[in-house]
Amino acid sequence: MTTSTDSSHTRVTLIGAGLAGSLLAIYLAKKGIKVDVYERRPDMRKVDISAGRSINMALSTRGIHGLKEVGIHDKIMAKAIPMKGRMMHSVEGKLSFHPYGKEEWEFINSISRAELNMALMNEAENYPDVNFHFNQKCTGFDVKNRELALYDETTDRETRLPVNTMIATDGASSAIRLEMTKRDRFNLSQHYLEHGYKELTIPPGADGEFLLEKHALHIWPRGTYMLIALPNLDGSFTCTLFFPFEGEFSFETLNTEEKVLSFFKAQFPDAVPLMPTLQEDFFANPTGSLVTIKCAPWFVEDKALLLGDAAHAIVPFFGQGMNCAFEDCTYLNHCIEKYGTDWQKIFPEYQSLRKANTDAIADMALENFIEMRDRVADAQFLLRKDVEFALEEKYPNRFIPRYSMVSFHRIPYATAYERGEIQEEILDELCQSIQSVDELDWQKADSLVQQRLPKVE
Amino acid sequence: MTTSTDSSHTRVTLIGAGLAGSLLAIYLAKKGIKVDVYERRPDMRKVDISAGRSINMALSTRGIHGLKEVGIHDKIMAKAIPMKGRMMHSVEGKLSFHPYGKEEWEFINSISRAELNMALMNEAENYPDVNFHFNQKCTGFDVKNRELALYDETTDRETRLPVNTMIATDGASSAIRLEMTKRDRFNLSQHYLEHGYKELTIPPGADGEFLLEKHALHIWPRGTYMLIALPNLDGSFTCTLFFPFEGEFSFETLNTEEKVLSFFKAQFPDAVPLMPTLQEDFFANPTGSLVTIKCAPWFVEDKALLLGDAAHAIVPFFGQGMNCAFEDCTYLNHCIEKYGTDWQKIFPEYQSLRKANTDAIADMALENFIEMRDRVADAQFLLRKDVEFALEEKYPNRFIPRYSMVSFHRIPYATAYERGEIQEEILDELCQSIQSVDELDWQKADSLVQQRLPKVE
Repeated sequence: MTTSTDSSHTRVTLIGAGLAGSLLAIYLAKKGIKVDVYERRPDMRKVDISAGRSINMALSTRGIHGLKEVGIHDKIMAKAIPMKGRMMHSVEGKLSFHPYGKEEWEFINSISRAELNMALMNEAENYPDVNFHFNQKCTGFDVKNRELALYDETTDRETRLPVNTMIATDGASSAIRLEMTKRDRFNLSQHYLEHGYKELTIPPGADGEFLLEKHALHIWPRGTYMLIALPNLDGSFTCTLFFPFEGEFSFETLNTEEKVLSFFKAQFPDAVPLMPTLQEDFFANPTGSLVTIKCAPWFVEDKALLLGDAAHAIVPFFGQGMNCAFEDCTYLNHCIEKYGTDWQKIFPEYQSLRKANTDAIADMALENFIEMRDRVADAQFLLRKDVEFALEEKYPNRFIPRYSMVSFHRIPYATAYERGEIQEEILDELCQSIQSVDELDWQKADSLVQQRLPKVE
Repeated sequence: MTTSTDSSHTRVTLIGAGLAGSLLAIYLAKKGIKVDVYERRPDMRKVDISAGRSINMALSTRGIHGLKEVGIHDKIMAKAIPMKGRMMHSVEGKLSFHPYGKEEWEFINSISRAELNMALMNEAENYPDVNFHFNQKCTGFDVKNRELALYDETTDRETRLPVNTMIATDGASSAIRLEMTKRDRFNLSQHYLEHGYKELTIPPGADGEFLLEKHALHIWPRGTYMLIALPNLDGSFTCTLFFPFEGEFSFETLNTEEKVLSFFKAQFPDAVPLMPTLQEDFFANPTGSLVTIKCAPWFVEDKALLLGDAAHAIVPFFGQGMNCAFEDCTYLNHCIEKYGTDWQKIFPEYQSLRKANTDAIADMALENFIEMRDRVADAQFLLRKDVEFALEEKYPNRFIPRYSMVSFHRIPYATAYERGEIQEEILDELCQSIQSVDELDWQKADSLVQQRLPKVE
């Protein structure tokens, strides 16, 4: 194991070779910084660590921008499947398609988490100054002495590693954040949803064909819960059931294969014939929990910084967890461009640029769960969508639906949140006394939009 | 060291011999339960661990009730000084006294934290089945194997201790809560105020006399900060400055003896002559932080429970931290009376009885900081107080000021919070168009109170 006693700060230690850690390694290497990445798990390129699951992500503009900045966008996008909108499945099996945006380029991209992670590791290893160290579980960080405690399960060996500057990209259950939790004046909230999730699968057809529309994110919204499905390159779909842990219909009560099948048949009848291993998967796959984490400060002097989920885990309902972590890299890179490797200056400025925005996406992600699972085609909802569309057409630089601001723009999340609230108020006002978009009071619309929504640069 | 391998659950391990742990040991011993208490520090009855500080507490009805339940109320109260109201000190040195309640028995009691803790330990040790183990720092809890990790600093020895049922009374920085923080679906918020505190002292006069009114809690309210002073038996007062960590006037900027003195002379001119060691104390004593902690669940099966500050640390502005922890003991005792030593039943019921109430006092304690530091004698405030007093006189079982409900009753905190909100609304309505209590619309008052405030049983 390489131990760094180099006193210069152009050597950085990353904890965690997940999506954020692997991309950040590339960003840092491009700045001439030596990077050691310590990863708890074995090398996923050599050992299958998927535990039978095949998580996929929705890559969108902020994430893509990060990939572009380090020049690997084209390679990565070749592994992705565009999803142009949501395909809603009713209980009766009726389908309705809702495009994500009005423009051709407004789509999100389904990509395998494992494939993307491996590609990023490969890219990072192209830089001679990036070294990955696997099977190295971080078990503690002695802040005072700048010393990491690492444990290698395969050799049962503990090491203490002196580090200069360390960036924790070790995800929602970050060991480094846990160390920080003990520090005076460290603010933290970790809040779990009452819902968990279970991954299931729709395999490809006999000839490898997609058995549902390929270019869509499929949703079976059912009020307090939902099923979703994202396409994979091999023709399969990865499905996720978001469902209460406890209660009448819950992971607790769906405790036999019969109950699972009859529940799915009643609620997701068009999906059941496509899921031959439903009951098996349901009991073989783990039930995951969903957490929102906010904390501050993210850093300790020039010694340590939390980045990505380690600093701000969010629920998956806006498809922004990874995109937000990649955008973290963009902002940190921006600060490095400004201050070189003066981490004492970089970390506070990075936090001040990022914190309000990551708080905002955390809140929007929670709100979007309601939107996704409750979305119904009632008259009032459709009217609002029509009016929203009309306003977007007329004022493309001012009225941008929140989903678009978040997914297809790089407008700071906090700004997207604020403008989204204003837009809702404008829609309230314009829709309250009309039945159809034809009755829209354009004079009023014009004055509201011009007054309340400054042009987006 | 006694290690328990006894499989019966009539042996309980407590972590922390502070106020909550020591009182709880007595409660449990009285139920015939064997108790081992592991305490990080040395025995405070043999070693001075005060670090020069002399913290005092405000003991009130809920805390006193706990002491009564275990039969040690009289002994303890002999060490306390009644404080009948707040003595406000203006910048000009003008004094105004505000009684805590209208009744003779409505006072709170200043008591030395160390004296009280030692007395509780002594009482607990009267029970042969209570054993204290000092210098035993809990460094971890292996939930699966029911095993505590303990470290003795004096011998540099680590022990692993099998336990049956463990109750963590190890305070706001609970090691057991930190272990629970790693568990799936453990909700936690720890939020620090932007203010810290510093303990200072007013020594007794030459003949041991009190240099300020003895039977009062003294407050120098100054808007964004304040100084308070509580009497001690020896004629001294323990003062606490609650003050911002950063900003124009803050612990950061008051960084020389000159600055401290000139600031105190300007803001607390009547206190300065009474504080001969002000500057010395200011730099010798540590700056403390103030945290609010909420979490859930408080327990793991029948294995472990958080109680007192470990479960719900609050800021000190309602003088309820200790009182709330003692009331925790009352409620836990109630559950033990119901279920014997069936901890699997006791812990969930205890939490369901307590959680909403400890959340409520946490919020009220934060609100009271504003009330204490901003309290001014403006006309509107005085009118409200007059009306409040009149309503309390007329409807003693219905309209009880919030401070009284919390400090002089055992009404559940959450109920006190809700009724307090209703009372504020009633005061808003009754005061909006009058200048003096003589103009009070009693018919309206009568109907509002009867309708909105059911009798307190």
